[in-house]
Amino acid sequence: MEKETPQAAPPPTFLRGEEASSSSARARFERLIRRVQAEVCAALEAVEEGSGGVGVGGGVFREDAWTRPGGGGGISRVLQGGRVFEKAAVNVSVVYGVMPPEAYRAARPDAAAGAEKAGPVPFFAAGVSSVIHPNNPFAPTMHFNYRYFETEAPQDTPGAPRQWWFGGGTDLTPSYIIKEDIKHFHGVQKEACDKFDPTFYPKFKKWCDDYFHIKHRGERRGVGGIFFDDLSDRDQETLLDFVTECAESVIPAYIPIIERRKDTQFTEKHRAWQQLRRGRYVEFNLVYDRGTTFGLKTGGRIESILVSLPLTARWEYDHKPEEGTEEWKLLDTCINPKEWI
Amino acid sequence: MEKETPQAAPPPTFLRGEEASSSSARARFERLIRRVQAEVCAALEAVEEGSGGVGVGGGVFREDAWTRPGGGGGISRVLQGGRVFEKAAVNVSVVYGVMPPEAYRAARPDAAAGAEKAGPVPFFAAGVSSVIHPNNPFAPTMHFNYRYFETEAPQDTPGAPRQWWFGGGTDLTPSYIIKEDIKHFHGVQKEACDKFDPTFYPKFKKWCDDYFHIKHRGERRGVGGIFFDDLSDRDQETLLDFVTECAESVIPAYIPIIERRKDTQFTEKHRAWQQLRRGRYVEFNLVYDRGTTFGLKTGGRIESILVSLPLTARWEYDHKPEEGTEEWKLLDTCINPKEWI
Repeated sequence: MEKETPQAAPPPTFLRGEEASSSSARARFERLIRRVQAEVCAALEAVEEGSGGVGVGGGVFREDAWTRPGGGGGISRVLQGGRVFEKAAVNVSVVYGVMPPEAYRAARPDAAAGAEKAGPVPFFAAGVSSVIHPNNPFAPTMHFNYRYFETEAPQDTPGAPRQWWFGGGTDLTPSYIIKEDIKHFHGVQKEACDKFDPTFYPKFKKWCDDYFHIKHRGERRGVGGIFFDDLSDRDQETLLDFVTECAESVIPAYIPIIERRKDTQFTEKHRAWQQLRRGRYVEFNLVYDRGTTFGLKTGGRIESILVSLPLTARWEYDHKPEEGTEEWKLLDTCINPKEWI
Repeated sequence: MEKETPQAAPPPTFLRGEEASSSSARARFERLIRRVQAEVCAALEAVEEGSGGVGVGGGVFREDAWTRPGGGGGISRVLQGGRVFEKAAVNVSVVYGVMPPEAYRAARPDAAAGAEKAGPVPFFAAGVSSVIHPNNPFAPTMHFNYRYFETEAPQDTPGAPRQWWFGGGTDLTPSYIIKEDIKHFHGVQKEACDKFDPTFYPKFKKWCDDYFHIKHRGERRGVGGIFFDDLSDRDQETLLDFVTECAESVIPAYIPIIERRKDTQFTEKHRAWQQLRRGRYVEFNLVYDRGTTFGLKTGGRIESILVSLPLTARWEYDHKPEEGTEEWKLLDTCINPKEWI
């Protein structure tokens, strides 16, 4: 993949030519992810400001923008060392690329069925992705990612259909189980889903538990939320509305939890456990997360990809929380996912 | 893979039946790795004792032994939270297993050429592996691993030849470049190699630089040492002697460096840089290291596999050391490997 060119300021659009001002799904999705990026960053900065954090050793987002010679680019916004947030990143990217036929067949087996001899496949991908690690061990880490994908007809098979789909999700990774918080978080996800289809929440909740699975540990990364991929079974308008609803639910799902937990008293023991759970976060992201492993292999902007890793993490040999403790309860929930609503 | 059964104490051998007392390569190699494990642990405990560390919050090795129902097993010895060593692990394992034909073809393309329709391939693997992370940012991390591998004829191709090979290496990962230390370390490796073949050191030094490559960063993990795999091009006796020489070089290569650096004065800045380099260590081990990724996929004993990870690590967004600083010099050496002798 071509190397990125840093930009002094984000360009008004990463789309090519007249596409930017159109009402195409690409243009509407780019506007959505940039708006969500701005809103989430503003909400997090407001929390820092409310804690006297802005300007005091962090507390504000730094912005890095870049473009690629062939079109596309991205904006990373990162807050590090805040009063409330250890590390928070909200990134958007818009990528024009070409995927090898094998990757196309793996991604879209249905479409590839009639195109076995297809050549490379031009694609378009845009997304917002975010990981937020607070300092307080009782304030959970949150991750969300919403993306839109299009493939052209494979280069040697002009008759094959164009494809498009949406993917994404929002999930929570606490170090301690506080039921009130988790119920609130899942409740907001369910509410967003229910506006479109009552089958969405149960289906996407399970998908989330299955996806964020640290197989070598037999543990989920956290307490889940919603996750979906390859969503294209309704009209584009409806699904864009659904993804918009999900992305707009991030702030109401998360910020109230942070406000409640950011100043909770904690001890070194709580902090050490949080650090061990941060280690599990690193294990999931480096070993299993599709976005991360794909990004590392394809030469994406490394600092934007790995900004999802926590500021600090810890690995103790053979650490086992004592049965019945609060630490054990978290682990048990990661091993045996629960229903929250 | 079958799950391990913990043992109260290590059995005298992990080999099956009469094999244990024989002079077979398997038996001799098991004796070698268990002796090396004992010697390296004793040398590290002696360093702790010399620093007043034994019994005071760490400083001694804890031992975990296990066997597998079908034969084989392992011993993990781990020291955590010592005065000198943050985390040190020396593991041995002896594994009887069956590899799928694809894995066999990938591992031994030469042997598999006449056995395209081969079934599963019984194998034997034994090895010692160790990672030692000291506390002091001027005392480098060291890793070594020596292993012996045998495959039987594939189950459906009884005529195909049995195969055996050795692999391994010893490498150093400092946070700061102290030439005297690195020259000493590479000098001991070269001396061990030169006793057998003057081409070994240059070849295995380069192999090491190539192997410990964090591709997504364009950095080596550290300043290397030696690394080799699939070594079977001389008689078994000679190669077992060579691997023995390499394994016995670990203590003289490493301990003098630790004795010199364990009490060096350092600041928070040095410690923070060491923590960032520990993060790179985690990236290499979870994303690229063959032993780790193989172990995670095949259900090995997770705590023994991941004990290579440091106690603590750190990831800062877009951290770049200022040109000309000591931190920059280390990074430059990781990007552009040097000759030390």
